[in-house]
Amino acid sequence: MGATLAELAHRCDGELRGDPDYRIIRIATLETAGPHEIAFVADKKYRSQLATTHAGAVVLGDTDSRNYSGNMLISKNPRLCFTRVATVLHPPIRPQIGIHEKAVIHDSAEVATDAAIGPNAVVESGARVGSRVVIEPGCYIGRDAVIGDGTWLYANVSIGANCVLGQHCIVHHGAVIGSDGFGYAHDGVRWEKTPQLGRVIIGDEVEIGANTSIDRGALGDTVIERGVKLDNLIHIAHNVIIGENTVMAACVGIAGSTRVGKRCTLAGQVGVVGHIEIADDVHITGATVVSHTIREAGTYSSGTPIEAYSSWLKNAARMRQLDDMARRLKKLEQKI
Amino acid sequence: MGATLAELAHRCDGELRGDPDYRIIRIATLETAGPHEIAFVADKKYRSQLATTHAGAVVLGDTDSRNYSGNMLISKNPRLCFTRVATVLHPPIRPQIGIHEKAVIHDSAEVATDAAIGPNAVVESGARVGSRVVIEPGCYIGRDAVIGDGTWLYANVSIGANCVLGQHCIVHHGAVIGSDGFGYAHDGVRWEKTPQLGRVIIGDEVEIGANTSIDRGALGDTVIERGVKLDNLIHIAHNVIIGENTVMAACVGIAGSTRVGKRCTLAGQVGVVGHIEIADDVHITGATVVSHTIREAGTYSSGTPIEAYSSWLKNAARMRQLDDMARRLKKLEQKI
Amino acid sequence: MGATLAELAHRCDGELRGDPDYRIIRIATLETAGPHEIAFVADKKYRSQLATTHAGAVVLGDTDSRNYSGNMLISKNPRLCFTRVATVLHPPIRPQIGIHEKAVIHDSAEVATDAAIGPNAVVESGARVGSRVVIEPGCYIGRDAVIGDGTWLYANVSIGANCVLGQHCIVHHGAVIGSDGFGYAHDGVRWEKTPQLGRVIIGDEVEIGANTSIDRGALGDTVIERGVKLDNLIHIAHNVIIGENTVMAACVGIAGSTRVGKRCTLAGQVGVVGHIEIADDVHITGATVVSHTIREAGTYSSGTPIEAYSSWLKNAARMRQLDDMARRLKKLEQKI
Repeated sequence: MGATLAELAHRCDGELRGDPDYRIIRIATLETAGPHEIAFVADKKYRSQLATTHAGAVVLGDTDSRNYSGNMLISKNPRLCFTRVATVLHPPIRPQIGIHEKAVIHDSAEVATDAAIGPNAVVESGARVGSRVVIEPGCYIGRDAVIGDGTWLYANVSIGANCVLGQHCIVHHGAVIGSDGFGYAHDGVRWEKTPQLGRVIIGDEVEIGANTSIDRGALGDTVIERGVKLDNLIHIAHNVIIGENTVMAACVGIAGSTRVGKRCTLAGQVGVVGHIEIADDVHITGATVVSHTIREAGTYSSGTPIEAYSSWLKNAARMRQLDDMARRLKKLEQKI
Repeated sequence: MGATLAELAHRCDGELRGDPDYRIIRIATLETAGPHEIAFVADKKYRSQLATTHAGAVVLGDTDSRNYSGNMLISKNPRLCFTRVATVLHPPIRPQIGIHEKAVIHDSAEVATDAAIGPNAVVESGARVGSRVVIEPGCYIGRDAVIGDGTWLYANVSIGANCVLGQHCIVHHGAVIGSDGFGYAHDGVRWEKTPQLGRVIIGDEVEIGANTSIDRGALGDTVIERGVKLDNLIHIAHNVIIGENTVMAACVGIAGSTRVGKRCTLAGQVGVVGHIEIADDVHITGATVVSHTIREAGTYSSGTPIEAYSSWLKNAARMRQLDDMARRLKKLEQKI
Repeated sequence: MGATLAELAHRCDGELRGDPDYRIIRIATLETAGPHEIAFVADKKYRSQLATTHAGAVVLGDTDSRNYSGNMLISKNPRLCFTRVATVLHPPIRPQIGIHEKAVIHDSAEVATDAAIGPNAVVESGARVGSRVVIEPGCYIGRDAVIGDGTWLYANVSIGANCVLGQHCIVHHGAVIGSDGFGYAHDGVRWEKTPQLGRVIIGDEVEIGANTSIDRGALGDTVIERGVKLDNLIHIAHNVIIGENTVMAACVGIAGSTRVGKRCTLAGQVGVVGHIEIADDVHITGATVVSHTIREAGTYSSGTPIEAYSSWLKNAARMRQLDDMARRLKKLEQKI
């Protein structure tokens, strides 16, 4: 259990200063760490704790290393180094390999011999489950769906028919992949449902948060490219394409047929309308509504600042007069 | 498999020009369609593809029909016609009729002989499941709930006790119907839970999106009238009434006891406060907050436009001065 | 079945006027109540119904009591009194005690003999399930999780490994407690997952709405203190702390490491950024974005009012000129 500092330094590409054979058991905060724990200096505000920590070792940057004399791993990117250390010291606890006797696997489904499928999971006809996949209890894998090698589905996840998940993905409790897109034609009175015939295609190393839902394409596919990370309670509509390594915080909604670029970050509660494009390297701040195509990389926002309710009431009421105010201001300028 | 153009024309009420016996297998886009596929011209921007498509037939409007010489179905509403064509060519794949041996059905529940109930579904005492209903794996049907004929519940749906679903409804993965409303009385220190005794009553042909939740009424019922379509991750609070054929895009939240009219459209992330009314034929644009009763049909909005973060910072900061600005502007006008 | 007015008066701490032995069966509205039902006067707008109600008894305040001659329970807090009456008359229908033969309980899990565990529920190794706990069908209780006495999990709830729920909590369908927090380190190209090693710790008498998700802490824990009530579709990120008796309406999102005080109320769709603090007794109105620490009790808001789309278009467009308008206004003032 645990690892030596030499092993950790190797795994996190850090420079070791101190005892290479010193054994670390787990990670901790600077404040709580004991002799067999490793901590890290996240940012300046934790620097003062460095003098008093009892940690067995510390991950830190070059600058901080000068003020510390204990065991340390020095890194240009201490957060990344510490993440790798944590990954070494705290690997996920894998369930037992094999198909639980209370799982329900269709005869025509293909399940790798080293996959782990929990009780009450259901794998429908034609589905394929890759090597070292974990399917926890209560998951549903629809007809002809594909779950790539090393992917982990937490309990109560639903994967619709024909959907494809890449390798080493993680899908959290309650997430839904492959629900029908929201498509109807109006007959003058009623909305008639348009069959949703596409799939959801998910690349490798994608993580999908709890109770997030991703709709299948109407005719083509909804595509989540490799390395995308989606937080909880996100809605991705039909035929959306999300570019590589883009991340979205919780409660984001993306409407249909929109294309989001690579390496974007969408903060919490962002809404994006349908049928637009967001360029690569675009960053959207929290609760912003993206109402049209964004062609240039950069940071974008909408919304108004929080204030005391009493003053907000007065200011917000003026919003309805803003155009009028602008016209009156212009008129005054012309007069003077 | 597939259908002749004559059959399709009949089903979609379209005018057939071309070979009535020509057989179509599936739908496709103009760009990708081959000789046994049918495509449609959705709007002007696809018009140019009409010249080069290899589709076996095309659904289009009167205007576009003049520029096309292949097999075609001409319709006043090509989108509707194509939806009907798609429905004929791509019927849902129904699971096998009967109760799976790993479903758990209470002795006092009534299940139609032609219903299909998947493994690990649970149907509690007194519940009634209608003809040709599909209940996929992992669904939960509470005590005395009613599932109308032809309704389809995707995997992992939860229906609370006493709730009633109409005929030909569709409920997607993870949706919840009949959770308790959010009702408490304050005892000076703590919030005491008010029992939520009403039901959710859902009309015919209602569709409910993935992970959407609809609370039961506190005393009366929460009512979703026939033909309503709700997208994913929507919250409907207790005692809300949603009128016929109203549609709501994803991430909408409706607070308690509010009444939404018929034929309304609420775009994504709209929020509606409690205890108000929205008239028939009201349209609300994305992320708008509806804070008071709307008595007249029409389109309504709130919110501010997206812009570059640097300019937004400056503009948003001025929001807190808006009332002051309005007063100062008025003073200036009086001076001049 | 039912209770006498004397019993009800005792339970709700109300003053009884009328027949103490009169038997009441259930609650109802003033409008619909019959002779064995009890109703209440919620606010002024229902006062007029008092003259015509057929209710067997009415819960009301001192003022209203003077205008009524039937059986009544007089209370300083009629809403609270009525909630307690409703709780007496309508206790939840508890499922049968014991472990259903189709539940899957690990040998090392400890389940109280008077707990009720439904079919297809899964309780993993080392988990502990307290006295009079109800775990409905399809629930998942992860490794070493603890479910306190009297807590009730509705169908299809997921509780992650090591999480701790207090006593007398209620968790609604589809809720997720203990999904991974959204934590990554950037390696220059990709986002590497930071192991999420903390737990979710939930106090007594907490209620959690349908499809709400609460992430486990990254290193420390996410904490929901006693008496907190969370509505549906809420997102609580890793390492958030929510103080006692705070309530949040549906669709709220709280980003990571934020601390919300005691006795706060957050209305629907509120968003709170990460790493900030909200003081005790703070009230946030609907859809407000809380972007920085709030140190003083009070009510806070952001956002703009709803208006007709045509005028909104003009006013919202001016938002991008607001800073410019403010500067021009100042210049004019200086000139005059």
